[in-house]
Amino acid sequence: MLKNAYLSEKPDKEQLKARLKEQRLLLFKNQTRIRDSKLPVIVIVEGWGTAGKGTLIGNIINNIDPRFYKVSNFSDPTPDEKRYPMLKRYYEALPEQGKLRFCNSGWMSEITRGRIRGEISDKEYEEKIDSIRRFERGLTDNGYLVVKLFAHISAEVQKKRIKKLQDDIDTKWRVSENDLRQNKDYKECSKIFDKYLEDTNMPSSPWYILDASSEKWTELQALERLNEGIDTALQNHSLAVPIIQNTFPLKKMPKLKEITFEGKELTDEEYKEKLDALQDKLSDLHNRLYRKRVPLIIAYEGWDAAGKGGNIKRIAEALDPRGYEVHPISSPEPHEKARHFLWRFWTRLPKDGHVAIFDRTWYGRVMVERIEGFCTENDWKRAYNEINEFEKELDTWGAVLIKFWVHIDKDTQLERFNDRQNTPEKRWKITDEDWRNREKWDVYEEAVNDMIQKTSTRFAPWHILESVDKKYARIRALEIVVEELEKRLK
Amino acid sequence: MLKNAYLSEKPDKEQLKARLKEQRLLLFKNQTRIRDSKLPVIVIVEGWGTAGKGTLIGNIINNIDPRFYKVSNFSDPTPDEKRYPMLKRYYEALPEQGKLRFCNSGWMSEITRGRIRGEISDKEYEEKIDSIRRFERGLTDNGYLVVKLFAHISAEVQKKRIKKLQDDIDTKWRVSENDLRQNKDYKECSKIFDKYLEDTNMPSSPWYILDASSEKWTELQALERLNEGIDTALQNHSLAVPIIQNTFPLKKMPKLKEITFEGKELTDEEYKEKLDALQDKLSDLHNRLYRKRVPLIIAYEGWDAAGKGGNIKRIAEALDPRGYEVHPISSPEPHEKARHFLWRFWTRLPKDGHVAIFDRTWYGRVMVERIEGFCTENDWKRAYNEINEFEKELDTWGAVLIKFWVHIDKDTQLERFNDRQNTPEKRWKITDEDWRNREKWDVYEEAVNDMIQKTSTRFAPWHILESVDKKYARIRALEIVVEELEKRLK
Repeated sequence: MLKNAYLSEKPDKEQLKARLKEQRLLLFKNQTRIRDSKLPVIVIVEGWGTAGKGTLIGNIINNIDPRFYKVSNFSDPTPDEKRYPMLKRYYEALPEQGKLRFCNSGWMSEITRGRIRGEISDKEYEEKIDSIRRFERGLTDNGYLVVKLFAHISAEVQKKRIKKLQDDIDTKWRVSENDLRQNKDYKECSKIFDKYLEDTNMPSSPWYILDASSEKWTELQALERLNEGIDTALQNHSLAVPIIQNTFPLKKMPKLKEITFEGKELTDEEYKEKLDALQDKLSDLHNRLYRKRVPLIIAYEGWDAAGKGGNIKRIAEALDPRGYEVHPISSPEPHEKARHFLWRFWTRLPKDGHVAIFDRTWYGRVMVERIEGFCTENDWKRAYNEINEFEKELDTWGAVLIKFWVHIDKDTQLERFNDRQNTPEKRWKITDEDWRNREKWDVYEEAVNDMIQKTSTRFAPWHILESVDKKYARIRALEIVVEELEKRLK
Repeated sequence: MLKNAYLSEKPDKEQLKARLKEQRLLLFKNQTRIRDSKLPVIVIVEGWGTAGKGTLIGNIINNIDPRFYKVSNFSDPTPDEKRYPMLKRYYEALPEQGKLRFCNSGWMSEITRGRIRGEISDKEYEEKIDSIRRFERGLTDNGYLVVKLFAHISAEVQKKRIKKLQDDIDTKWRVSENDLRQNKDYKECSKIFDKYLEDTNMPSSPWYILDASSEKWTELQALERLNEGIDTALQNHSLAVPIIQNTFPLKKMPKLKEITFEGKELTDEEYKEKLDALQDKLSDLHNRLYRKRVPLIIAYEGWDAAGKGGNIKRIAEALDPRGYEVHPISSPEPHEKARHFLWRFWTRLPKDGHVAIFDRTWYGRVMVERIEGFCTENDWKRAYNEINEFEKELDTWGAVLIKFWVHIDKDTQLERFNDRQNTPEKRWKITDEDWRNREKWDVYEEAVNDMIQKTSTRFAPWHILESVDKKYARIRALEIVVEELEKRLK
């Protein structure tokens, strides 16, 4: 790929000047088009060390108002960043709608550096490529424009530039170990770059190789690609996206109406005895989890008044508060709504060895957002697979992921609603919205059935907790958590 | 202090049980009172290693709905955290209005650990105590309830607990170097703790020493202090707070009406020549800044259409985009409004060696918020000192802080407004709000004069940029930045 001809040929000085002027003006105009159409734009600048990635970004942003862009600089992940899935810090850097985000290096550099240093095996590499392909497709499917630029220079040019930087005390620090290694093993690195570029050269987010032998010419190529990309994206902005079929093995799951509650209850004594034993076990497992640095994620969904809160409480009681966090999820705040729907979950993931409990989850996309029309049909239909892919990332990372649907029947809900309404201390728990949602029980049931069928992958199946007797549901939840942890930690 | 009697005497078993039940219920009720009155609550749990801080927090939060609290666990700052001012990570952890935040250790531990290891000199210690006292007073003045608990155990109890933890493989990792050091040098540590507790025992945020010899008794004491604190805070919630007088040396500054524009202009040639020379210099200085790890913060305020954007652009052009960020500041988002008004600036501070340019700043508090009534009179009157204290933190940290007021006269503004209105490409820059603000020119002028007089401390004076000729203002800004950096980096 790097050996192929560049997309455009270097013009003479006069032409270069004229085209550069035109492209700069175009970008200046495009910033308001981006804003008005709420297009989020990610520009990834990768390339050889000393190819001038920083300078290129500097030149581009000079044409844009600071209100419309941000620059993220990625180097090797810090020890703390390494405790999260690779993609987390890149998700965090996603731009809001209507804004541009420039990434000075990014996931390509992280992966190819690891390859060059021999830290990433072939199998790990393939896994990472899968992640990246899904990640970028997830972005473009969700309306992001992803522009990927690779600044290319020859070994000779790189050598000269390194020398020039090293000769000045104020720029010497800029030459990294990595730059030196690249120049020393230029050919080998070329191969690794080439393979990555080919592996991730996708129709919705293709690579552009820039001839980075001179500053202004590099800028012109980058601006032309960026402006073209914006044009195309704005034309396609309202188009629906193909729904990718799930490719992960699914578990067969029952429909909600097949669930019965008979016999699913406990006496107070049974409950107390089991509770104490299970909480003790979970306490011990939490210590081992911490020591072995395994992350645990527990996701709760369920009918209003099904008893999610009390269920979570019984899990949390057994955990060391230094090692867990409960995330109550309600409707997204403006800065969350302006980003990919999974952004607010990626940014809330636990460190390895820690526990995150989500009280409502990313499944809002295929329930409330579907039913209330907060996203398009195309959006929620795509979401089943996007969610499976998200959970696959968690699985690959090594997380134990447990998903609970806390289940009751319609009569039980009414009883509990009335109880809440009639008990002063409980009244804050019941809102008009709860009553409105109740009226939509049947459409919710359909959505829940779809969700459970389509997202019960082998690595992250749903567990249905029968919760007409809350005690029974709590013990079941504890049993499942203990069982899953024992499986992993044995 | 640690030797003094505890606030309450340990009751017998029956009494303990009864009082605990009562206090738990009280906290359960208080969570809704906190929410309804939008009181933000910070509970800091400090104490000896193995005193049971984590367990205590775990027991307390069992009485609260996860929607209403979060737990932050602080250990030694990471290398990355060390590149920011000490208080940054604590500011980041501030709770939203109506919520509780529990801090498992915090700034006390950070400081006393440093003292125990001999890493903090007497002078640094005094500086840090000043910071902490201002920090906590700033919180309580802004309506936060700050409850500070210290869990106390004797050397013998600590020794026993360490041994017990060490004897089990699953809990061995919990015993830190720090715990062992404390137990070895218990007396010396006692002195350091005592001094810190006395130095920071303030009427608005006093310390409570808990007898942490047994779990339930510790919980009871903590709950009693917390519930009392909530009661007091809710009673005082709407009270105004005394305005603390500024104690930092101020620079004498002119009033806006004394500023003249005569002769403050440049020809195109003068401008171009100076611009090139100054940008080259600034580029070099940015490299040195990076190498020497000095943070630079440039704060822009000014009349609408005074030319802030273009001015910032000329500074930014000279900087390496890997090392700077422009923060355009508009009205706060809901999650920002729900916190201390300085929160969104603390969280946007640059790393050391990096540059942050603020396009509008924390001075909104004493301008738009004052004039539009977005905060109380008491709030904005207190803010001058709060801002000086904030900037003092930046100064102590080692930042170069440069504040610009970009100044024009009223006629020039009208000209530029009309030009924007009449030029299609510029029209997005002018809004109805700009016209409305223009009508309030005189009250703004008064607010700006107050601001410049009251916040031109020796360590962070205002620079007024005469910007009727924008070229002149840009060159002046560059000159001032270059000058300030040369002073620091020489």
